[in-house]
Amino acid sequence: MSTYTPAVEDLINELAKLPGIGKKTAARLAFHILRSSQEDAQALVRSILRVKERIGLCRVCFNLAEGEMCTICRNSQRDCSVLCVVEEPNDLIAIEATGVFKGIYHVLHGAIAPLDGVGPQELKIAELLERLKQGGVAEVILATNPTVEGDATSLYLAKVVKPLGITVTRIAQGIPAGGDIEYVDSKTMSKSLEGRREV
Amino acid sequence: MSTYTPAVEDLINELAKLPGIGKKTAARLAFHILRSSQEDAQALVRSILRVKERIGLCRVCFNLAEGEMCTICRNSQRDCSVLCVVEEPNDLIAIEATGVFKGIYHVLHGAIAPLDGVGPQELKIAELLERLKQGGVAEVILATNPTVEGDATSLYLAKVVKPLGITVTRIAQGIPAGGDIEYVDSKTMSKSLEGRREV
Repeated sequence: MSTYTPAVEDLINELAKLPGIGKKTAARLAFHILRSSQEDAQALVRSILRVKERIGLCRVCFNLAEGEMCTICRNSQRDCSVLCVVEEPNDLIAIEATGVFKGIYHVLHGAIAPLDGVGPQELKIAELLERLKQGGVAEVILATNPTVEGDATSLYLAKVVKPLGITVTRIAQGIPAGGDIEYVDSKTMSKSLEGRREV
Repeated sequence: MSTYTPAVEDLINELAKLPGIGKKTAARLAFHILRSSQEDAQALVRSILRVKERIGLCRVCFNLAEGEMCTICRNSQRDCSVLCVVEEPNDLIAIEATGVFKGIYHVLHGAIAPLDGVGPQELKIAELLERLKQGGVAEVILATNPTVEGDATSLYLAKVVKPLGITVTRIAQGIPAGGDIEYVDSKTMSKSLEGRREV
């Protein structure tokens, strides 16, 4: 028999659906919400509803956007000749955080994963090719994850993009900054050796 | 410059207010909520609102309750001669999970912490004494946390409850089940030695 009241039990179950939140953490969060002021709880609820109501996908690059287009596609300062392909909006944010990339993006919303039933049609690949055919892009940077699915997606994209006469590059894989060669896994180390460059 | 849209930024900030949730985790949760269906987001929102609307404190023991009294105080099977004092409703749930305790509870909603400005008046101590004066309770078990604040609260409660002619006990402190004596901290070890019992 559970000693939570049904409403608390229900909230714990809902919170436990969030990624990385188990039952124990969900219970702690639920108790925090219980103890918090009515205003704080309302603010949380409002921000959830606002996100679900306002946020859509940019009609150009499929990044998250409030309105028709995202802030990057609306920004006339960006270099439209370099297009970076990422799996998810979070990846785009990680790249933006570096401040190094000044080009534009295309968000696939996933990676090719036949075992999960995700083929090229499930991703925003047709839309990418459509964009590229309109011209103006000289280089496509493939910034999918360094996983089996991400690599497979990159290979597929390289195959379909190259015939358009566009340079296709893949972000470098190797040992991370501040990493310790002694403790680097062999897969990363072999990628690092493979990708060695003349200095 | 942030690359999140204002609505997403706002949701991340709200989520980051939850305990144990930093900015990175909050962003992951926000993206999950963004990706989840409208129904899932609504279910989460509804359960938050329901908890804030329905859950109050039991007028007898100050446990969480839907309605006037909590499930434990409403349960006529419980042994009303043994009363267990805890700091928070979560503590009550942890004790209930053992299935060992068949008595009733009293939730203080905190512990005496002069540095944080929490004195006996801020806790449900007057209400506890009122309950005890009505008679029927033979033993009060002090199950406050084994911290400076919890121990201080226990000492204070023992001082005010004993004059009522009620037996006052404190839950045992010692090495945890499955623990390894070699790695037990010295504070716990000394408590364990202090609390030794004849076998």
